[in-house]
Amino acid sequence: MDETQTLHDAFLDQLRDVYDTENQLIQALPKMAKAATVAALRAAFETHLEETREHARRLERAFASLREPPRGKHCDGIAGIIAEGNAILAEHLDDNTRDACLIAAAQRAEHYEMAAYGTLIAWGQAMGHDEAVRLLQATLKEEKAADATLTSIGEGGLNRSAARGVSSKKRSR
Amino acid sequence: MDETQTLHDAFLDQLRDVYDTENQLIQALPKMAKAATVAALRAAFETHLEETREHARRLERAFASLREPPRGKHCDGIAGIIAEGNAILAEHLDDNTRDACLIAAAQRAEHYEMAAYGTLIAWGQAMGHDEAVRLLQATLKEEKAADATLTSIGEGGLNRSAARGVSSKKRSR
Repeated sequence: MDETQTLHDAFLDQLRDVYDTENQLIQALPKMAKAATVAALRAAFETHLEETREHARRLERAFASLREPPRGKHCDGIAGIIAEGNAILAEHLDDNTRDACLIAAAQRAEHYEMAAYGTLIAWGQAMGHDEAVRLLQATLKEEKAADATLTSIGEGGLNRSAARGVSSKKRSR
Repeated sequence: MDETQTLHDAFLDQLRDVYDTENQLIQALPKMAKAATVAALRAAFETHLEETREHARRLERAFASLREPPRGKHCDGIAGIIAEGNAILAEHLDDNTRDACLIAAAQRAEHYEMAAYGTLIAWGQAMGHDEAVRLLQATLKEEKAADATLTSIGEGGLNRSAARGVSSKKRSR
């Protein structure tokens, strides 16, 4: 019917986009955990998979707070980022370089989500969707923490080992 | 030949990815500026277009510092984000909601770039590519500033007007 869409419509649209994002990541993270060589990185992906499942549940509660059924809408942005991550898995990389590339791909995903949740929180505040905003803020905090964990794994020696061409298998023993 | 790739190879790959990102954004930003209703948003996109052209030139200098020709490699991540932005242009949105959605799309692009430059800087530091790191840091600073400008436009009244369904044409006069 091509009716003019309001901010509330756009908010629901973004909520569906990020719900799809979380569900795409629930599929992608186990592959990334399996591909990681360094134990700390594998553990970070596994922890974040559990958090991501909770993020999807929080979005279901946010939909409920607006009396809307939870629905996803295919998100091209995260699909492109995940396609880049999958390309890494097919490449011949030395172990530390593979881990560094997995971190790079995951941080692109985290940043995508930070932007998406930042938007939802700003719009939700403007419209007074207080319960949804609280849920979204809890998730944004965890996305930022996951990003910081990945930075600290990279800067805690992995990037330098990769730069020197040191095998991470040796390092992680 | 399927040779094992090192962090240096991955660095060049990421540099080509972000060079393609900047060039895709040079194509996308004029359309976003044209679609913006509020003058401050249109000006922000036009200013960032000029910055983006300079980011591409800085990347050319970073390639030169590594004695590599500047080359792009198609970036699926930003392509997906731009596809989402283009979808907004085709939708029937009230003026303030359109502006809010343009900000949302642009902030996803800024965050994508923050992650990409953050990775390049961390890896460049680990490998001692000092000149490239300085160039990349200058751009990262501008991407963060552009993101903050967009937040302040949204939170400076646009989101609240959109929430109330006030026409931005009235507001911007």
